[in-house]
Amino acid sequence: MRSAKIGIADTTFARVNMAKFAMNVLRQYGNVKIIRYTVPGIKDLPVAAKKLFEEKNCDALMVFGMPGPHPLDKQSAQVASTGLMMAQLMTNKHLIEVFVHEDEAKDNHELYEIARNRAEKHAHNVLKILFKPEELIKDAGMGKRQGLPDVGPIKL
Amino acid sequence: MRSAKIGIADTTFARVNMAKFAMNVLRQYGNVKIIRYTVPGIKDLPVAAKKLFEEKNCDALMVFGMPGPHPLDKQSAQVASTGLMMAQLMTNKHLIEVFVHEDEAKDNHELYEIARNRAEKHAHNVLKILFKPEELIKDAGMGKRQGLPDVGPIKL
Amino acid sequence: MRSAKIGIADTTFARVNMAKFAMNVLRQYGNVKIIRYTVPGIKDLPVAAKKLFEEKNCDALMVFGMPGPHPLDKQSAQVASTGLMMAQLMTNKHLIEVFVHEDEAKDNHELYEIARNRAEKHAHNVLKILFKPEELIKDAGMGKRQGLPDVGPIKL
Amino acid sequence: MRSAKIGIADTTFARVNMAKFAMNVLRQYGNVKIIRYTVPGIKDLPVAAKKLFEEKNCDALMVFGMPGPHPLDKQSAQVASTGLMMAQLMTNKHLIEVFVHEDEAKDNHELYEIARNRAEKHAHNVLKILFKPEELIKDAGMGKRQGLPDVGPIKL
Amino acid sequence: MRSAKIGIADTTFARVNMAKFAMNVLRQYGNVKIIRYTVPGIKDLPVAAKKLFEEKNCDALMVFGMPGPHPLDKQSAQVASTGLMMAQLMTNKHLIEVFVHEDEAKDNHELYEIARNRAEKHAHNVLKILFKPEELIKDAGMGKRQGLPDVGPIKL
Repeated sequence: MRSAKIGIADTTFARVNMAKFAMNVLRQYGNVKIIRYTVPGIKDLPVAAKKLFEEKNCDALMVFGMPGPHPLDKQSAQVASTGLMMAQLMTNKHLIEVFVHEDEAKDNHELYEIARNRAEKHAHNVLKILFKPEELIKDAGMGKRQGLPDVGPIKL
Repeated sequence: MRSAKIGIADTTFARVNMAKFAMNVLRQYGNVKIIRYTVPGIKDLPVAAKKLFEEKNCDALMVFGMPGPHPLDKQSAQVASTGLMMAQLMTNKHLIEVFVHEDEAKDNHELYEIARNRAEKHAHNVLKILFKPEELIKDAGMGKRQGLPDVGPIKL
Repeated sequence: MRSAKIGIADTTFARVNMAKFAMNVLRQYGNVKIIRYTVPGIKDLPVAAKKLFEEKNCDALMVFGMPGPHPLDKQSAQVASTGLMMAQLMTNKHLIEVFVHEDEAKDNHELYEIARNRAEKHAHNVLKILFKPEELIKDAGMGKRQGLPDVGPIKL
Repeated sequence: MRSAKIGIADTTFARVNMAKFAMNVLRQYGNVKIIRYTVPGIKDLPVAAKKLFEEKNCDALMVFGMPGPHPLDKQSAQVASTGLMMAQLMTNKHLIEVFVHEDEAKDNHELYEIARNRAEKHAHNVLKILFKPEELIKDAGMGKRQGLPDVGPIKL
Repeated sequence: MRSAKIGIADTTFARVNMAKFAMNVLRQYGNVKIIRYTVPGIKDLPVAAKKLFEEKNCDALMVFGMPGPHPLDKQSAQVASTGLMMAQLMTNKHLIEVFVHEDEAKDNHELYEIARNRAEKHAHNVLKILFKPEELIKDAGMGKRQGLPDVGPIKL
């Protein structure tokens, strides 16, 4: 694939504009067209994703969400993730789920940095999936992380 | 889209007539036709939603439920949410799940106010999804909440 | 709808013949034909439901189960409920899940009464879904319960 | 139905050859043809079941598994059960899930006896589903158990 | 089946290159063609699997992942496993999920050895599924394990 249409789905519930970080990365790559779709919350993302695939003909998506810290939020995140997985299986297209849970960080500053780092690194990942899959194969089993530093492979 | 048919699905189990609050908002918008469908409990909502989409040709839905505080109620809510997500993926149409859990509030008065606030704000959200999606994009990552005050975006 | 074919699916695992209570209610309504289908346990109910819809052309179903009190039983109930929800989404027809969990009651007598009450009330609900949906709309948000007394709407 | 093709799916992970017990029962019934399909673990069973239904034209299945005692094993069992349920809904055919959890018994001897008893009783159940459904209706709500003695119906 | 195309899906998140161990086993079998597909994380595996089945015409797959030790990781693993199960049901083809959870081992060395052992043994399993299913039937109920020593059948 030489050029691609990448969809961005995100929420008004999130407290960080993660899509902005990702779009800054994606835009540096010349042959990418971006379509953005914002919904209220994470449970609205699966059908937004499916519509981006089927009605907007996106080749791949990045899907951003920021679930809260409570048990109900975790349950919502699982329903949303299951829906995002189904949307992929129904279309045979990739989306990268970029979820940052509020309780991953000890304070707002750290949360913001996790969100920025995860969004940027996954923007590179979606580009690799579309344009350079061989680079992902090269990194298989290498302990890559998004939002945090890579942990690297286990060395014996 | 200039006009729309909006379906309302709700339950006799809930202790607040949330749909009423939402319909008051929706009716202020001139080009909306409303179809209401009431079922006994939250697990009856997914197929009601699918029928509203496919048999009544609704463009979008609001789906109201009030799960109880017990573990079994949480399990029912997860099954219902999964079904509502599937109904959307099978039809490529949006529904906004407006669930208020009884244990979100410390007393009946607070529960009622959460329910009213969430119903009204999500009525505005469904109108934005249908008629003004650009307003949602403008609010991406802004920490919007329904049922409670907005928390706003993280500022560094 | 003026007449209907109502399917009844239940199990040999349950300790109360709940279907009997429901059928007594349904039979008082003249234009109902009943088809009964009994399976061993609750995980056998989803495909039984789908067969009643598709092979027996039932218009709606009542599905009875009595999950045990152990964590494995709760897990089975969730799988069964998810399957019953899918059966509805695949057919666009309603079924009312009438599950009574053994640990809902403090003794066998109470369990029996919950089962009877829930079966009877939901028999009325399935009749309303088929023949008088406007009665359900009238009761929206009214805190109706099955198996226990109604809690009623929240009054401020 | 006068004769049937019954599929048997089981695993190399299980520690008891449960299928053997079931086949001994099934073979006493003259008009049954048995097809066996063994896979490594319980998560391999759903597609094995679907292939037995669709590629081998089985009329019904028995599916045997023995999940371990750890939380990960319970999670695997839930994924497997959900898949087995979907396989039924996609084909409109029955399978009886015969799972014995290692932590159901206090020692190996009891585990073996539960496995044998459950396999044999469910072999009778699959025969009833196929050939004598009226016997299951007769036992509705009778507190039948497999792997353990029947508990019987609640008597007031 | 005399020859086969086997797909390998794995992640850059994993800390061990498990696919390498498996491919060493598979390559000793002459009539196997291998196609590798690496994605960022385990939730990207289900659609990768479906694409390997449908777009690359793989006959069977091995799917490698290494979920972390936290509750969120367990939730991700369950979503991924559910998706892998759906991918099989939608294609009627087998994949073997080779997941090694970081908290299965007490240290990195043990984790590495579990991963190697599980990958190699499951490579043999996928070959048996494709070429020698009768060997799996012979081992039914024999307490086979991957990643750990076999526990063997229960002997009375």
